[in-house]
Amino acid sequence: MSTKATGEPQGSRPTPVPSPQYASTGLDVWTMMNQVAASVNAVNLGQGFMSYPPREFIRRAAQEALVENTHNQYAPPRGHPGLLKQVGIHFANRLARPIDVSSELSIHAGANEALLSVFTAFLEHGKDQEVILMEPAFDQYTPNIIMAGGKPVYVPLRVQSGDKDPSKDVISSHDWKLDMSELEAAINENTRIIVVNTPHNPIGKVFSREELEQIGDIAARHNLLIIADEVYEHLTYGVDHISIATLPGMWERTVTVGSAGKMFGVTGWRVGWSVGPAELIQPTLSAHTRIVFTSNTPLQEGVASALKLAKENDFLSIQRQEYEHRRNRLMAIFDDVGLPYVVPDGAYYLLVNAAAIKIPSDYSFPDFIEERGPNFKLVYFFIKEFGVSGIPPTEFYSEPHRHLANDYIRFAFCKTDEGLDKAAKCLQSLKKYLKETS
Amino acid sequence: MSTKATGEPQGSRPTPVPSPQYASTGLDVWTMMNQVAASVNAVNLGQGFMSYPPREFIRRAAQEALVENTHNQYAPPRGHPGLLKQVGIHFANRLARPIDVSSELSIHAGANEALLSVFTAFLEHGKDQEVILMEPAFDQYTPNIIMAGGKPVYVPLRVQSGDKDPSKDVISSHDWKLDMSELEAAINENTRIIVVNTPHNPIGKVFSREELEQIGDIAARHNLLIIADEVYEHLTYGVDHISIATLPGMWERTVTVGSAGKMFGVTGWRVGWSVGPAELIQPTLSAHTRIVFTSNTPLQEGVASALKLAKENDFLSIQRQEYEHRRNRLMAIFDDVGLPYVVPDGAYYLLVNAAAIKIPSDYSFPDFIEERGPNFKLVYFFIKEFGVSGIPPTEFYSEPHRHLANDYIRFAFCKTDEGLDKAAKCLQSLKKYLKETS
Repeated sequence: MSTKATGEPQGSRPTPVPSPQYASTGLDVWTMMNQVAASVNAVNLGQGFMSYPPREFIRRAAQEALVENTHNQYAPPRGHPGLLKQVGIHFANRLARPIDVSSELSIHAGANEALLSVFTAFLEHGKDQEVILMEPAFDQYTPNIIMAGGKPVYVPLRVQSGDKDPSKDVISSHDWKLDMSELEAAINENTRIIVVNTPHNPIGKVFSREELEQIGDIAARHNLLIIADEVYEHLTYGVDHISIATLPGMWERTVTVGSAGKMFGVTGWRVGWSVGPAELIQPTLSAHTRIVFTSNTPLQEGVASALKLAKENDFLSIQRQEYEHRRNRLMAIFDDVGLPYVVPDGAYYLLVNAAAIKIPSDYSFPDFIEERGPNFKLVYFFIKEFGVSGIPPTEFYSEPHRHLANDYIRFAFCKTDEGLDKAAKCLQSLKKYLKETS
Repeated sequence: MSTKATGEPQGSRPTPVPSPQYASTGLDVWTMMNQVAASVNAVNLGQGFMSYPPREFIRRAAQEALVENTHNQYAPPRGHPGLLKQVGIHFANRLARPIDVSSELSIHAGANEALLSVFTAFLEHGKDQEVILMEPAFDQYTPNIIMAGGKPVYVPLRVQSGDKDPSKDVISSHDWKLDMSELEAAINENTRIIVVNTPHNPIGKVFSREELEQIGDIAARHNLLIIADEVYEHLTYGVDHISIATLPGMWERTVTVGSAGKMFGVTGWRVGWSVGPAELIQPTLSAHTRIVFTSNTPLQEGVASALKLAKENDFLSIQRQEYEHRRNRLMAIFDDVGLPYVVPDGAYYLLVNAAAIKIPSDYSFPDFIEERGPNFKLVYFFIKEFGVSGIPPTEFYSEPHRHLANDYIRFAFCKTDEGLDKAAKCLQSLKKYLKETS
């Protein structure tokens, strides 16, 4: 048979066309801001990775895992047995209930892949199913929901700080409130899932028991699945983290997602987990098996050892104090230069309100910044002029609510003392750009 | 406001319902056959993982990577720069063209996630877009295509062994042929992608240049994207592996997928890659970024070092000889017991034709096997009676073509000499179940 191509030259052959969802060649916010930061050798307080090494016992645990051949080969899709056991113990304590690790737990290639697995397992394409997100919302939620066939619906947290003016006064992360009637109004017969992120990125809000009870009651009345994104569960400062799955009647409808990267300061290990009743974890595991088949084995075993050792040496409690110290240091830096912020009760981000900074009217921005609006311009100016990088939190908002974050910059404080000291020095130059306030 | 749940007891509340695609609680074939094998402590020649440790230099490369903090934190979504560089060098040699690692390459959380990323990037939900698979086909292709919104269309490889009867005679993997008119008949205006797996799992067929040219011409005439799954590229025995991307006009429409796990005998590391023109890799990278964000960093760096060292110590060539030795050993075992097989020219699987085995008519099978048909019964009987486990290759077929594999069992030979020796002893008991042949 003849299978020769027709006569036209190869250069004019049509080429495959991507799905519109993935056709954009624009830079993601992380890459973009990392490049701006690198151009002025800025102190990187942007992306939330640790600028210091993990503890020796954590690193050694992974090194030792590599010695055993079985730790270099496929783990079962649900997870390496040693890690399932240790995460099961961890959640039995945290959730105050026995965890059947053969049915109520799954290990993932990072918490991100855990979230995608749950969305994939519980949403269908072509059915207009909706997922409620509270804004600001971690920037992967929306594309993950769309990939799984769902539609994100946004309910913003709103600042209720009483007499305090967030552009002039330090406020609490607890001043960012979810209006329960606004939440309920966003729910309709197509709503399937609500995502609850506590401690919250980027606000640092730790949801109170009363707030979680109210959210839980609404979820139960509308038969919603709750995804509890609790990757910062171990980082709270003066308040208690509460897992919504521990509230009465909530275990049955909640998948709780966690992260070894956040827990042990190894964001590059890509080990996370999902825990919940078997009826919710089985479909999640089925989706996970098709998405990545299984997470990497040596670092799963490393995390298993680290979890065991962490209890013996009280690591998580010591680490929490270290983060609290870093938080306080970064807050003091902004106290000194005179910019207010939102005091985070958890996680490792500080939202700074930079409304008082006066950008010269003739300041010139590159097109890729100009087209992204005032918040990107603010962050670009900040990085370029003061040499300290942050992330524009408008990236965590849908278009209709984006203006709520126009004055803010997100800084990460999972950074060394030296880095924070250098930031303090750099930021002295900020004072001359402050508007006079009444 | 009142947000209390209505009066019914919590136990009777409805609970969230999964998507039908992920609702099944059935066992996947790997877990099922591993359990059957464990029940009789069988020699595991089922799943394709190595029963021996990786080379010391590979393991040490990963251990050393863990020392550097930056190797414990997020890598850029495209990949750790050190690994991009080494994989770029590797493909510049293999594909005989310069590779721009900043646009023509992406690192993935295993080759599986690379495949899912390409399907996701180039298929749309609700558009009835089709993907051509050649059967038998790796069992993840179909669910990955469906997850991305596509429809798999199957064209079986067909045995053309002339005078030889595959149930009695050893045949060549090259006797499994793709009928090009059958392939072309399967293509219509909705067809978007064709997957070419060479060296082929499970047949061991290495596609010839002429076959690849014919497939490539058909792909070009119908403007199809080619996904070249070449994870076994380094394991060929007496024939040359040819990358379809090296044929004239094919680079422009081909994404080639590879695997560090297969290359270095570390299936649990979950590091793979995709390479192709920027217009194909950019959407693939966009999808990858949303699926897992990034692959694990320490093992990426480990693979980067291993790739560098592999050249110095001629590792890949030595490894190929070792696999050829294992292949020959396993073929000799089946020669001895009197079962014919398909001689693999590549990869690390042996398809054995077990039609000559006579299963007693009163032999009892558990329901979970009985319901899966004659090939699962054959494999179950084989594992239980002879203590050597394999995989039923009907799992690699769609229903209409499944019968083509009813007589076959897939065995993996990425196993120790001790394991193969033990298999040889176990299989002596097979002889008494052979039907008398004319």
